[in-house]
Amino acid sequence: MKKIACILLMGLCVFAPNAFCHAAEQAALVRLPAPKTEGGMPLMQALKQRKSGRDYSAKEISLQTLSDMLWAGFGITRPDGRRTAPSAANVQEIDIYIAKADGLWRYNAQDNALELISGDDIRGLTGMQDFVRTAPVNLIYVADYSKKGRFGTQKESWAAMDTGFIAENVYLFCTSEGLSTVVRGLFEPGPLIKAMKLTPDQKIILMQSVGYPK
Amino acid sequence: MKKIACILLMGLCVFAPNAFCHAAEQAALVRLPAPKTEGGMPLMQALKQRKSGRDYSAKEISLQTLSDMLWAGFGITRPDGRRTAPSAANVQEIDIYIAKADGLWRYNAQDNALELISGDDIRGLTGMQDFVRTAPVNLIYVADYSKKGRFGTQKESWAAMDTGFIAENVYLFCTSEGLSTVVRGLFEPGPLIKAMKLTPDQKIILMQSVGYPK
Repeated sequence: MKKIACILLMGLCVFAPNAFCHAAEQAALVRLPAPKTEGGMPLMQALKQRKSGRDYSAKEISLQTLSDMLWAGFGITRPDGRRTAPSAANVQEIDIYIAKADGLWRYNAQDNALELISGDDIRGLTGMQDFVRTAPVNLIYVADYSKKGRFGTQKESWAAMDTGFIAENVYLFCTSEGLSTVVRGLFEPGPLIKAMKLTPDQKIILMQSVGYPK
Repeated sequence: MKKIACILLMGLCVFAPNAFCHAAEQAALVRLPAPKTEGGMPLMQALKQRKSGRDYSAKEISLQTLSDMLWAGFGITRPDGRRTAPSAANVQEIDIYIAKADGLWRYNAQDNALELISGDDIRGLTGMQDFVRTAPVNLIYVADYSKKGRFGTQKESWAAMDTGFIAENVYLFCTSEGLSTVVRGLFEPGPLIKAMKLTPDQKIILMQSVGYPK
């Protein structure tokens, strides 16, 4: 019901002033269960077993596991807002979008929530390989360069590194939890950028598919 | 004694044919103790405690700990040569150099060894901050683009991401082992490239200082 209300509110944005859009954005927020921040596989074992996997079963990823995974990747760990992964000058310019069958979402680490971007299933736009269409989760790492002007020409290199830190956390989490994952870089930018409603300051850096192994 | 012999042999390269240089390179190899590939902190706890630290004590890092750290970062885990961190198309274009008081070394994952590049202490050249001069270990991540022609203009972005994967592994290892670490990007390229004897195909991507906390 809440989701239907959100979609209706979002529809109003086409005709209505900013106030409506804000209401819609605020409404389209799904709180995640509190992430598990203890336990998991011993680190050296996770490193030893880390690998890429592209064959996923149809089994869905629960909201609890998604919450744990997003926290592992780039969750907040300290009162000053610092996170599980570093970022250049602590600018935290990387956003994690989540493409699932039920829509496109953005991780809001501050509120431990998912923000609804679109109710469309855009998984097929996130890559060229067949498996991306049915992977239960495709993470999309997006740099927001409006946060990072002072890095000049190095901003792209830093965004790539900052993404690497996060994606490796997700790799190790997946290893620890028996999930299968792979990072990917091949996609057609035009349709995806449009479907994701990105601004000119936002740039897609990397994809990461996640699912249970077949 | 072995090290002195290596340095003498390296000196010969100035005057001698290639055969001598190869002998010197082969001699300048220090075998690392077998890395620990089990145990460590539970993954979620390591993620929770990961942070950057810039104050190091004078305590040295043992060869065993260095071996464990390099394996955690980018060690070989499978018979086909795949490693703890992914790399785009499995090209494995990142080399880890290690600047210590006793010289500059390069990690040879296949042989689990350090290759001596130079007997000079070049730690001070790896960054602008005071602490880099005395940090027991400064890792230098270097991309070898001769391995990666087919990525074209995206090779720099992939090298940065591939470095991020490795550096995050090192962050988590340091967290698990009570070591302090920070990644850094600021340095003067000219003198460092010369001191490291890099080829035109090699590009320095990132630094990472490591030491025991004060």
